[in-house]
Amino acid sequence: KMATPVYTPFVFLLLLFQSRVWGFPVRQTPQESPTCGYKSCHATKPGMLNVHLVPHTHDDVGWLKTVDQYFYGDRNDIQHAGVQYILDSVVDQLLKNPDRRFIYVETAFFYRWWKQQTDDMQNTVKQLVNEGKAREGDEATTHYSAVIDQMTMGLRFLNDTFGHCGRPRVAWHIDPFGHAREHASMFAQARVIRAHSNLNPAPSPPGILPNGYNPPEGFCWDQSCDDPPIRDDPDLEDYNVDDVVTRFLSIAHALVYKTNHIIMTMGSDFQYENANLWYKNLDKLIRYVNQNQSNGSGVNVLYSTPSCYLQELHRANLTWPLKGDDFFPYADSDHDFWTGYFTSRPALKRYERISNSYLQCSVLWLVEKAVAVAQHHDAVSGTEKQHVANDYARRLANGWAHCQVLVSNTLSSLSGSSAPRVYCEHLNVSVCPLTETSKKFSVNVYNPLARPVSWPVRLPVNGTAYSISDANGKAVDSQVVPVSQATAAVRRGRGYAVNELLFQVQAPPLGYSTYSVSLLQNGPPSPHFVTLRDFLSSLLCVCFPRYNASDGNNSESIQMSGAYIFRPNTSTPFIISKTAKTETLQNSVVQEVRQWFSPWVSQVVRLYTDSRALELEWTVGPVPIGDDLGKEVISRLDSSINSSGVFYTDSNGREVLQRRKDYRPTWNLRQSEPIAGNYYPINSRAYIKDDKDQLTVVTDRSQGGGSIQDGSLEIMLHRRLLYDDVRGVGEPLNETSDIYPEGLVVRGRLLLSLSPPATAADTHRPLAQEVVLQPLITFTDGELHPSTRLEFSGLQAVLPPAVHMLTVSQWDQDSVLLRLEHQYQASESKEPSQPVTVNLQKLFSTLDVLGVSEMNLSANQWKDEMTRLDWKAESGEKHLPKRGGDPSVWEVNLKPMEIRTFLLRVRQR
Amino acid sequence: KMATPVYTPFVFLLLLFQSRVWGFPVRQTPQESPTCGYKSCHATKPGMLNVHLVPHTHDDVGWLKTVDQYFYGDRNDIQHAGVQYILDSVVDQLLKNPDRRFIYVETAFFYRWWKQQTDDMQNTVKQLVNEGKAREGDEATTHYSAVIDQMTMGLRFLNDTFGHCGRPRVAWHIDPFGHAREHASMFAQARVIRAHSNLNPAPSPPGILPNGYNPPEGFCWDQSCDDPPIRDDPDLEDYNVDDVVTRFLSIAHALVYKTNHIIMTMGSDFQYENANLWYKNLDKLIRYVNQNQSNGSGVNVLYSTPSCYLQELHRANLTWPLKGDDFFPYADSDHDFWTGYFTSRPALKRYERISNSYLQCSVLWLVEKAVAVAQHHDAVSGTEKQHVANDYARRLANGWAHCQVLVSNTLSSLSGSSAPRVYCEHLNVSVCPLTETSKKFSVNVYNPLARPVSWPVRLPVNGTAYSISDANGKAVDSQVVPVSQATAAVRRGRGYAVNELLFQVQAPPLGYSTYSVSLLQNGPPSPHFVTLRDFLSSLLCVCFPRYNASDGNNSESIQMSGAYIFRPNTSTPFIISKTAKTETLQNSVVQEVRQWFSPWVSQVVRLYTDSRALELEWTVGPVPIGDDLGKEVISRLDSSINSSGVFYTDSNGREVLQRRKDYRPTWNLRQSEPIAGNYYPINSRAYIKDDKDQLTVVTDRSQGGGSIQDGSLEIMLHRRLLYDDVRGVGEPLNETSDIYPEGLVVRGRLLLSLSPPATAADTHRPLAQEVVLQPLITFTDGELHPSTRLEFSGLQAVLPPAVHMLTVSQWDQDSVLLRLEHQYQASESKEPSQPVTVNLQKLFSTLDVLGVSEMNLSANQWKDEMTRLDWKAESGEKHLPKRGGDPSVWEVNLKPMEIRTFLLRVRQR
Repeated sequence: KMATPVYTPFVFLLLLFQSRVWGFPVRQTPQESPTCGYKSCHATKPGMLNVHLVPHTHDDVGWLKTVDQYFYGDRNDIQHAGVQYILDSVVDQLLKNPDRRFIYVETAFFYRWWKQQTDDMQNTVKQLVNEGKAREGDEATTHYSAVIDQMTMGLRFLNDTFGHCGRPRVAWHIDPFGHAREHASMFAQARVIRAHSNLNPAPSPPGILPNGYNPPEGFCWDQSCDDPPIRDDPDLEDYNVDDVVTRFLSIAHALVYKTNHIIMTMGSDFQYENANLWYKNLDKLIRYVNQNQSNGSGVNVLYSTPSCYLQELHRANLTWPLKGDDFFPYADSDHDFWTGYFTSRPALKRYERISNSYLQCSVLWLVEKAVAVAQHHDAVSGTEKQHVANDYARRLANGWAHCQVLVSNTLSSLSGSSAPRVYCEHLNVSVCPLTETSKKFSVNVYNPLARPVSWPVRLPVNGTAYSISDANGKAVDSQVVPVSQATAAVRRGRGYAVNELLFQVQAPPLGYSTYSVSLLQNGPPSPHFVTLRDFLSSLLCVCFPRYNASDGNNSESIQMSGAYIFRPNTSTPFIISKTAKTETLQNSVVQEVRQWFSPWVSQVVRLYTDSRALELEWTVGPVPIGDDLGKEVISRLDSSINSSGVFYTDSNGREVLQRRKDYRPTWNLRQSEPIAGNYYPINSRAYIKDDKDQLTVVTDRSQGGGSIQDGSLEIMLHRRLLYDDVRGVGEPLNETSDIYPEGLVVRGRLLLSLSPPATAADTHRPLAQEVVLQPLITFTDGELHPSTRLEFSGLQAVLPPAVHMLTVSQWDQDSVLLRLEHQYQASESKEPSQPVTVNLQKLFSTLDVLGVSEMNLSANQWKDEMTRLDWKAESGEKHLPKRGGDPSVWEVNLKPMEIRTFLLRVRQR
Repeated sequence: KMATPVYTPFVFLLLLFQSRVWGFPVRQTPQESPTCGYKSCHATKPGMLNVHLVPHTHDDVGWLKTVDQYFYGDRNDIQHAGVQYILDSVVDQLLKNPDRRFIYVETAFFYRWWKQQTDDMQNTVKQLVNEGKAREGDEATTHYSAVIDQMTMGLRFLNDTFGHCGRPRVAWHIDPFGHAREHASMFAQARVIRAHSNLNPAPSPPGILPNGYNPPEGFCWDQSCDDPPIRDDPDLEDYNVDDVVTRFLSIAHALVYKTNHIIMTMGSDFQYENANLWYKNLDKLIRYVNQNQSNGSGVNVLYSTPSCYLQELHRANLTWPLKGDDFFPYADSDHDFWTGYFTSRPALKRYERISNSYLQCSVLWLVEKAVAVAQHHDAVSGTEKQHVANDYARRLANGWAHCQVLVSNTLSSLSGSSAPRVYCEHLNVSVCPLTETSKKFSVNVYNPLARPVSWPVRLPVNGTAYSISDANGKAVDSQVVPVSQATAAVRRGRGYAVNELLFQVQAPPLGYSTYSVSLLQNGPPSPHFVTLRDFLSSLLCVCFPRYNASDGNNSESIQMSGAYIFRPNTSTPFIISKTAKTETLQNSVVQEVRQWFSPWVSQVVRLYTDSRALELEWTVGPVPIGDDLGKEVISRLDSSINSSGVFYTDSNGREVLQRRKDYRPTWNLRQSEPIAGNYYPINSRAYIKDDKDQLTVVTDRSQGGGSIQDGSLEIMLHRRLLYDDVRGVGEPLNETSDIYPEGLVVRGRLLLSLSPPATAADTHRPLAQEVVLQPLITFTDGELHPSTRLEFSGLQAVLPPAVHMLTVSQWDQDSVLLRLEHQYQASESKEPSQPVTVNLQKLFSTLDVLGVSEMNLSANQWKDEMTRLDWKAESGEKHLPKRGGDPSVWEVNLKPMEIRTFLLRVRQR
């Protein structure tokens, strides 16, 4: 986001190597085509400072405009940006001078452009890629499974299109809002070299870029810049070649570098729409600066790419530091912590998360694309404009609609029943026309996990009593309870159920089970109101605190809270209400406490009989703004746990990192924001612990949170703000919708578990997976045909608890892409943290596995063809993979946190 | 100027034909190359409405930025514009699709670009031009001799570069601020067809453009526009092809047209820097709109050029109206008359005018270029930004410096004296270090006219008496008078002369004469103060009135006076002073009255003994603005002449047009601005007359003026304004300089003659030529070597009074370009208005004329190869040239106002 002068974005250049599992690999030289890869790098001059000019553009896949508006260059009144023209122009200009280079990373745009090109143009571009043009991947703070799916899709497209020359050799990360360790791990699971600018202390980077991912001051020759062009015609006025060369040499010599190679990123947001301006001046810059070598300038400038730069760093044969921590929270100045976007647009964040679970039951390209686009850092981060958020949501909804057709067909085929299948997307607010009116219906529960799940179902109904039977015809205990006032208030005419029917369902791994429901009796239920178990009331803060947002005192010099930035105007949150209106009920299925703190904040605390976790269903909104104060609502969990200033958060839903209050592991922090500076992203879970207890919260979407007081965990639920925070989006984060014109109402769940630390992972690991990959529930009205198959599992047997089947998707006619993940960290649990073996031939119930080939994580290269540059770490130790051979080709061993990717040749049984 | 939404500029498309003398001719088909000219036009569809899309850019040769800043795209913070990239991009894009067309007109830019191109690129462009790309000329309200010189230079470059395919076939005039009849006459001396938008009533144009020279609303696809691109990928969001086609058809059908051909100008100021945006969408527009022909749309869209459009108008075989009047004053709304620029920047206007006289004694390309650039409508008009005006002045000064070297060399060679030659450029304020200090010096007077001139010389001196002898050693009468207080006040330390030495010099045609000056006596002179002749005091207004400028009442809705627009806040001018402090003197050389009206307004009224005209030397400035009022100072000449609401002004320094108060010849005027709406451009002269007397004012630069009361003529001298007038320049016209930091002081001369109407032209025609082509005076210190040739004439004999030698310039090694002009209108005089004959072989004293070929006016085509389209005028009469053969090839006959152009093959005698 370069839109405002206030904000200097930071650059994050990940140069990856030595990946044990996955990354952007480099082929060995013998296998390399002579024209692509490192072979295509320009020669450097050993005795000189070599300046690698890397022409690039940074094209947000939606931010101030929608992805297609950006692509076409529509709505240029909002922001001047037209990606179709960028690609047109860069290709033209690369053809004009074979020395020129470019990197392009946004595959979502490239794909759109590619399919509009003629065969001739496609061949031209293939030729350019063969000659050494790199294409690389972008990220956001997202769930790892969605990231991997997105990468796979994009890289597969590149593989299919360009072959191995199009395979990215480095990861190119610019403009993330902080950087997750898990992301680096996914790329390399090992070491990271990075060059960045203002991520306060930079631990020994190979070079600090002078101006973010922008070109150095005075050297921006895009049409969007006003820097003076190189005027080299001596017959015209203002000849400035000497001035340009002098300025360039002085910038180059002033840079910090460890080798005699430095990189300059020559480009920025949506630049190169008219690439001639850039290249014409870069050609001249290279010519005139290098002419000065004869005067002893000692500087050599060349067109380059990140991988060519990496190659030179490698050749330098130096030692490099390792980085163990991550880059959160990111701040661009003392009071400007980018911790607001962890929570911004909570409804969209949840929608994105559950859409990803759809992916697991669908290979539909369209859905995959919608979810991939939403992984962009301005999408799921919530830092896009409202109309763009609406576009993302619409794309997801569109993907869902297509996916429902596919799911219906699949279920019809598996079950042998073609009865119309109904989806109820608003069960979270007790809306489902079929269950509200039908006297007899069946419920199909599809479980995308590789182990059986037990799941509480809540259906809106108008009857008082129902009989339910499972797939084996066995009666299932159920209860009917009145719909809560909070639910009735938020559904806004979309449904009229007075009751909710509760029962527990179970579904087999990668399979479904079907339940039949029959109305027994109409009328209101007589709930049993009781008192909850003791520990809950002692654990919970019975309040919902909120922060009032800093409004910058109407001054531009004081940072305000906004879509990106969280900055409370005091460090003590306001308590919305010290007391709550409360109803409690208990029956054989659930105990619940319904709490109303104010007309716009309520909560239901539930403990299902079969559950390992306490559910806090929160409903927040419309956040009132009549007092002209933006508000950021948190849920705070206070406990007696002696957490000693330490808490833990996950990284992209996978590994867990320790966080210490007012502290950073690799550099000295001077804390300037006591609240916002202690917030971290919580993508799936956070916990505090002491020797005895661990309180873990599993979230249903990405949220921000912190542990400001010992024993306390707070999670930001919803934000409504009245000012833009001057990072370019140009809108206050003030969400409304057609249904909630007075302010968005958001509902979500926090799942709490309290366990001894040694066994906590045994609960939160599967729990978090269940929240991400929740069962898919469909309904069929009336009686099912007797021949209907009521239960099905795609697996021969349940997988071990440690193994998560991350990906199963059809790759082509005869093959399936499978990713198996060890979902425990080493030593976070006892038995589950051990290595585990899976036999690929004994996996599927419907497929014979005829062959297997292991691939890299992104599935764009065979594992045994991967080689990487060999780097010296400062520890002296080489982090080369040292793995024993598998006992057999079918037996797959998984170590803690390992993900392995296989392409299986299969035959339908 | 499209910079502000307030101003809708108008389009002036001159489609020229039947030129008797000059224009952009069209070759006959047999001589035409098969690939260029009309042959390259796309076929149209007879039964449909054919929409000619004309891609074009309008590139001011200096306005908000200097010409080289525009060329390179420097200072894009002022205005985004880079012409080098426009030409790069358009050439690229034309190569991508042979159907595409483009017109480019600004040769000053094209020349800069061309010489930076490789041979390959030059050949590519030649090929494109051969395939039918047109290149055409721009204009401004300027002196005709400068316009012709500029055209000649530009067209010669095109001829030399592209041959006959590059020869423009039509004139393309967009964005002039009104249009002079003389300009049309210069182009065609006959008839004009025009298409324009808001030049109130448009007399039967072939089609009115929907949006000035812009594309129609919603169809601007330049990078500078925000109109939606054509989104034709059905897989992406916002598919809009149907919408675009519908909107286009509705605009096309709504247009006014006389044939089934309409023109749409697809471009605007500095557009096509990234031509891909335009052409990609235009390609789609043509494809999709023409697809609708099968649905009966009846509209055919095609790429076209003005000449292709013209060809179709001609084929329509209709009758067309003739236009006799001109388009002044131009107004873009009731109170927004563009009559301020007639006077804006009076100092620059004078500098440009006298620089042109340098051209006549020099073939230096550099000077020619500087003057040509200054012909641009934003240069001499004074509507550029201050820094751009400074750049023009600097270019002219640079040209002068080079020219001085050439003149010195030429004079040395002719005179046989290599004594150092000194130039005094500030004689108008009595500054000349040599004459101020030298006791003996010589004065060389070079006369660029083809007839002898007698000229008063005023030199700053510190002596009291001098002896002067002419080239024949004969004593010359001289007088010494004290320097006036006004002059002493404005020279600001550049000179310290206390006296001025006055004497009359005479110089032979196209030659020089040398005067020797010796100091006789030091000390102050004793002037003879006397009373001027009677008629002068009765004629003159002894005041200098001024208008206070409208300041728009600080409201944007009320038009203010500015660089473009003159709008006084009342119709009655304020009298600066009713009385003047006066000194009068008389001697054998001159009588003069020195008048001080205020500290910032003074005047010297002079009558030289040998002169036919009274000289009013005015000095105005610094115009005070302490009262926060902009001021526009006029000189008003009141007389008893019964002018009956009629006065006369010249058109570009040549033909004279009648102006009638509150009236336009070809349409009904509702006068909305009694002063500004009656102002007209005075490029060289204006007059009022009755049966008995004609009062003629000859100006030394372009100025605005009017006759608001009968018997009165007012001329605006200087303007200082505090507000921008919202036509894009974005600066108030508030001139200061290093020498005049408190406000520019400007000095100039009005030459008045009072004669019977029948003989008035006999005075004002030669007078005006003398003001434009004034003698060039150089100085040599000390005694000249006795062998020095003190007098020289390039002519064998004086030419007849009617004949003006408009151009004599070396064309190449063996040839000279000669233009002879009959400088009288028919019947404006008795003897001089008769046709006249000149023998080309008896012209030059130093050259033998070996051969002659007549050319068209712009010297880019042989006269006998010119043919034009044959048009039907509404009068039914054909305006084809009907000229008898010359009696001999050497005898050249000139009819009134005729200009003939010859290329002479010569040999030095």
